[in-house]
Amino acid sequence: MTEMSVTSPKSKKKELKLGQLTIPAPAIVASLSGDASTKALAAEKQGADIIEVRLDLVDGDPLEVIKIVRNTTRLPIIATNRMREEGGSFSGTEMERIKLLLKAAKWANLIDIELRAELRELALQSVDKPVIISYHDFQGTSTYEELKGILEDIINAGADVAKIAVTTKSLADNLAFLGLLLETTHPTCMIGMSDVGRHLRAVAPLYGSVLTYGYLDEATAPGQMSVSQLHQALGILGASSG
Amino acid sequence: MTEMSVTSPKSKKKELKLGQLTIPAPAIVASLSGDASTKALAAEKQGADIIEVRLDLVDGDPLEVIKIVRNTTRLPIIATNRMREEGGSFSGTEMERIKLLLKAAKWANLIDIELRAELRELALQSVDKPVIISYHDFQGTSTYEELKGILEDIINAGADVAKIAVTTKSLADNLAFLGLLLETTHPTCMIGMSDVGRHLRAVAPLYGSVLTYGYLDEATAPGQMSVSQLHQALGILGASSG
Repeated sequence: MTEMSVTSPKSKKKELKLGQLTIPAPAIVASLSGDASTKALAAEKQGADIIEVRLDLVDGDPLEVIKIVRNTTRLPIIATNRMREEGGSFSGTEMERIKLLLKAAKWANLIDIELRAELRELALQSVDKPVIISYHDFQGTSTYEELKGILEDIINAGADVAKIAVTTKSLADNLAFLGLLLETTHPTCMIGMSDVGRHLRAVAPLYGSVLTYGYLDEATAPGQMSVSQLHQALGILGASSG
Repeated sequence: MTEMSVTSPKSKKKELKLGQLTIPAPAIVASLSGDASTKALAAEKQGADIIEVRLDLVDGDPLEVIKIVRNTTRLPIIATNRMREEGGSFSGTEMERIKLLLKAAKWANLIDIELRAELRELALQSVDKPVIISYHDFQGTSTYEELKGILEDIINAGADVAKIAVTTKSLADNLAFLGLLLETTHPTCMIGMSDVGRHLRAVAPLYGSVLTYGYLDEATAPGQMSVSQLHQALGILGASSG
């Protein structure tokens, strides 16, 4: 379903085709929490390419919120209902969590589901949108070899985009994880959540990470930068020297 | 002569002691060319920590220029009279080049001399300021192993700061060179001069590169960023996530 292509040799701008959906790569994802329904337009203005609605973190009825976001922006929307074990805040049962995600998918262009979600296969059978399958290591206990295996598991599970968020513990760790990114040909998003890995949010995109997540007012994960910081940093780092 | 120390556990700001001279690490170096005598103050305002006077690139009498810069700024000054084979523009003989550098050293806090300079040893015997010994590979033909050897040669030659500017040809090259930076304990400046390595100018400092060079109006080397771009990028990438 996925395809990576260079669309213009002149601009070097790449695109990622996910079925009917085409997104720029790398794309800046604005991760919206709290009063999300009012923030989509601001995210767009700050340089976001995609909006993520964190169903587990928004104020009010999450389905009402994503509906409003859908009516506010023409940007692609990712629906995410993060489980507690991976840094989320959803308080219901696993079945309730997946049901909400699947309902929200109606207004989304992509959904994000965890590799470790108990009902992952059920969810994947029931959804007809491209899927991000994600893995978060908040403790930084995964070795390079383990993460390589996890990336393979994610791809084998049918991910259109693989997403791995790591808590690197050293600069050498960062280089190993950037190396992992260079090795894979599958569309992959790699995120650094520690202080020592924070810069990966702006640097991993240069090494092929297809998505990078930023916040508007309030971080939704450790080490996250704001959308405007990402936009600025990518502009400076990614520009050609002319 | 050199020593790397963490001065405040609170700010995590490091300093590099070079004899009597103490500089922040990483430090942003504003490389001044052309009408350099008027630019030092602007460089300071844009966030430079050190001023480099490119004796081979300034308008007018280089000794007059560096004297004016000395009287304009309290920032440390690097005197550089780059040889043609390493990207410079000095048109006299090697002896004239070294004589000008040594005279300029009077108003400088550091001097930069090339590992491959014919009169390097003579120059080092005659100067009592800390020394940056530099190597530039504009073709990108040096392998990782060769650059590792060059770094050792630079250190053995008595460099207070080793400076290696590489033209990386791939993202994998970048990771290898960042790895080399992690391996050395000697104060080292690592620079990327290609498009694919351009971001190293802002990223190598996070991996221990002690200096990063920016321009004010006009680049003095391929892939160079401006001082204000470096200041901005380091601010975003280097900040702790709080």
